[in-house]
Amino acid sequence: MAIMKPRTLSGFMELLPAPARQMERMMEILRESYALYGFTPLDTPVIEASEILLAKAGGETEKQIYRFTKGDTDLSLRFDLTVPLAKYVALHYNELTFPFRRYQIGKVYRGERAQRGRFREFYQADIDIIGDGQLDILNEAEIPSIIYRTFTALGLERFRICVNDRKILNGFYAMEGLTEKSGDIMRTVDKLAKIGPEKVRQILQEDLGLTAAQAEEILTFISITGSSQAVLAALEGYRGRNELFDEGLTELSVVVNYLSAFGVPEENFAVDLTIARGLDYYTGTVYETVLLDHPEIGSICSGGRYDNLAEYYTEKKLPGVGISIGLTRLFYVLSEQGLLSEAPAPADALVLPMTADLSPAISAATALRAAGIRAQVYAEQKKFKQKMAYADKQDIPFVLLLGEDEIGAGKVSLKDMRTGQQELLALGEATGRILQAIGQAEAVPPIRN
Amino acid sequence: MAIMKPRTLSGFMELLPAPARQMERMMEILRESYALYGFTPLDTPVIEASEILLAKAGGETEKQIYRFTKGDTDLSLRFDLTVPLAKYVALHYNELTFPFRRYQIGKVYRGERAQRGRFREFYQADIDIIGDGQLDILNEAEIPSIIYRTFTALGLERFRICVNDRKILNGFYAMEGLTEKSGDIMRTVDKLAKIGPEKVRQILQEDLGLTAAQAEEILTFISITGSSQAVLAALEGYRGRNELFDEGLTELSVVVNYLSAFGVPEENFAVDLTIARGLDYYTGTVYETVLLDHPEIGSICSGGRYDNLAEYYTEKKLPGVGISIGLTRLFYVLSEQGLLSEAPAPADALVLPMTADLSPAISAATALRAAGIRAQVYAEQKKFKQKMAYADKQDIPFVLLLGEDEIGAGKVSLKDMRTGQQELLALGEATGRILQAIGQAEAVPPIRN
Repeated sequence: MAIMKPRTLSGFMELLPAPARQMERMMEILRESYALYGFTPLDTPVIEASEILLAKAGGETEKQIYRFTKGDTDLSLRFDLTVPLAKYVALHYNELTFPFRRYQIGKVYRGERAQRGRFREFYQADIDIIGDGQLDILNEAEIPSIIYRTFTALGLERFRICVNDRKILNGFYAMEGLTEKSGDIMRTVDKLAKIGPEKVRQILQEDLGLTAAQAEEILTFISITGSSQAVLAALEGYRGRNELFDEGLTELSVVVNYLSAFGVPEENFAVDLTIARGLDYYTGTVYETVLLDHPEIGSICSGGRYDNLAEYYTEKKLPGVGISIGLTRLFYVLSEQGLLSEAPAPADALVLPMTADLSPAISAATALRAAGIRAQVYAEQKKFKQKMAYADKQDIPFVLLLGEDEIGAGKVSLKDMRTGQQELLALGEATGRILQAIGQAEAVPPIRN
Repeated sequence: MAIMKPRTLSGFMELLPAPARQMERMMEILRESYALYGFTPLDTPVIEASEILLAKAGGETEKQIYRFTKGDTDLSLRFDLTVPLAKYVALHYNELTFPFRRYQIGKVYRGERAQRGRFREFYQADIDIIGDGQLDILNEAEIPSIIYRTFTALGLERFRICVNDRKILNGFYAMEGLTEKSGDIMRTVDKLAKIGPEKVRQILQEDLGLTAAQAEEILTFISITGSSQAVLAALEGYRGRNELFDEGLTELSVVVNYLSAFGVPEENFAVDLTIARGLDYYTGTVYETVLLDHPEIGSICSGGRYDNLAEYYTEKKLPGVGISIGLTRLFYVLSEQGLLSEAPAPADALVLPMTADLSPAISAATALRAAGIRAQVYAEQKKFKQKMAYADKQDIPFVLLLGEDEIGAGKVSLKDMRTGQQELLALGEATGRILQAIGQAEAVPPIRN
């Protein structure tokens, strides 16, 4: 038979077993965190009718789409989880209870130019809260708490959730008579950290044609930093000049003032007036999340408030707020930077039968599983050394040996693979030891600090 | 703006929130069950190069495939999880430890003719154990235990795991000099339950040209039923006439004899000599699982032992054993038959602030979440009745009310939505009550009996 050389497409992440277990553990933590805030796990098709998926799209996105026909149907693979959500909410509107909270962890597809760290198939982990006609600001205020809890559960400590409010920005630019140029200005200001204030001033004046006074006003505005309360106080100085600005400031104050009740420490949070999030789509609070020791990674969790989720599919006004984690890219970057903890083992215990009758070993494994221990029985015809190597290579922390002596004594030999120590114990005792070690292992989060 | 009528493609399952939570709970149980046996969660791309995916395929499968080009690459969506596994093991052979145990719960695509209960995108939940050159029979013996534990955890009691051994069948047909016709005979015998023995005899003689004596031998053979031990004893009567048969019988004895150590009750297991599993691919033990009260559903979990997983991609011999659950179809059928338990609520508790300052309500929700309780704060500007209706409609079992009185007393009012009873309690007490109810709810499995 002709052999076909196996390969995986470039731009498609395919993990080896140990990193696959790390990834699964991260997903499990995301599912748990999102569920704690009352989000429902949703799953929508990967394939949609092209006319539905592309109702809004255009430009770059459209070029990247995986689009094809099957029979005479024009189909596309989803390129994000937001458009399918919009379709879902519009389609099932009458059967949903609002505010509707859903999370979705799913694969999306973009035919980007293949390069290291860029993926054509990747997981997004999204949460959204959708209101029917209106949505209270408290939902926006809750988002930092969800981000905080999720990343803390993943093991991160040194990260910061940065928020801004598009109403404050839009109101401010209106005050300055710069509404028409506000898009270009925001894109420029967004580069502040990268290019510095003088370069920003230069672009504002030379490229965008602002006066020196206007540029100065903008630089003064975006240099408002410090504690959240200090930023709010400084912003109060602008109050009364523009209605939208005032509304945004009131909202931002709500977000800041409930942080502590939501359990978000001040050091993990900042108001950052340079954040705009590119999309015109956002209309209120916007979010970014940065790793303090790895700012080069960029935002690892972003999103914001929008006024109209599904305007392409329904005349109903469906405001919402949502955030997204680019999970595949985050996993890739954490892995590249050596920021992932040791992968979980595939099993907690390997049971090695040392007699012809395997029943005692199988019964021991059955008992371990009943106690919640992930156990494998190893019965391959190999030398003892190779059997131990099977456990060793996969970092299985315990080996249970069941030979004539152990069976005769009604006990098991428990070998702790980390210490090399071996003890003759009752199965119940061995179970207790293993459960204790599992508890310790589970306390180690997937991301190192 | 022109409104595009939202729709989901026919043949694509898109669940409402309550069934989505049922489905997620079933997946969680599958993940846990598979992990207990030491299987690693694997995830491979949905898209593969067509030449890789179709190295083996032909006929019906090939026609159903979603195949398209992107740029100048010929791509296909996976139509099962076995071919991607074969590619994975061949590709990463040097980096894997054997026996390699993996589970994969993932979507696969088949462009079947759309009809009720047939899906074009559906989840398969597969486990496989792959050996390097050889694989001990104990791995085959363990499979019924995994099936038993999984379905028991899902809530099923009245199901039966049926096994047979292809070596016994092939050996038997060789004894009768019917090897060449064995494929046709097995397909006929497979219909025994449906068409009865006389119709089977007629097809064997008239359509397949067997002698009356041969047909009689076959009918005698497949009428061997009863307890596993009784079937083994009857089969022993054929021993010594064909080497392959004898080998199969020895293997089947191993599978049967370790059942009890593996924790599988006799009543959930049967040796069924009529089972062959269509695929030529299987070479040893084969499995089917049927619901005793719903035989019309057919097998809900099937698989078997194969000798050569990846012959299209490598010259290495990679024997394995695996089973697959057609999860989307199973979910659909259970749902249609009314066999699913009540869906889990999206949250365990809804916190209703009754004061302008939301801090006490938010702090209460934060404390509940810290205790592992899924909590939502409801702050929409609605009438009290509408707020309660939000909890009611979604079956959220508890509402915590925080008004001036409660805050003044340092307590919360806990309303049990099932009984309608409301009590003033310390938050710690309320937490305890809710946790107790969660424990009770979690003890109810997703499938009813």
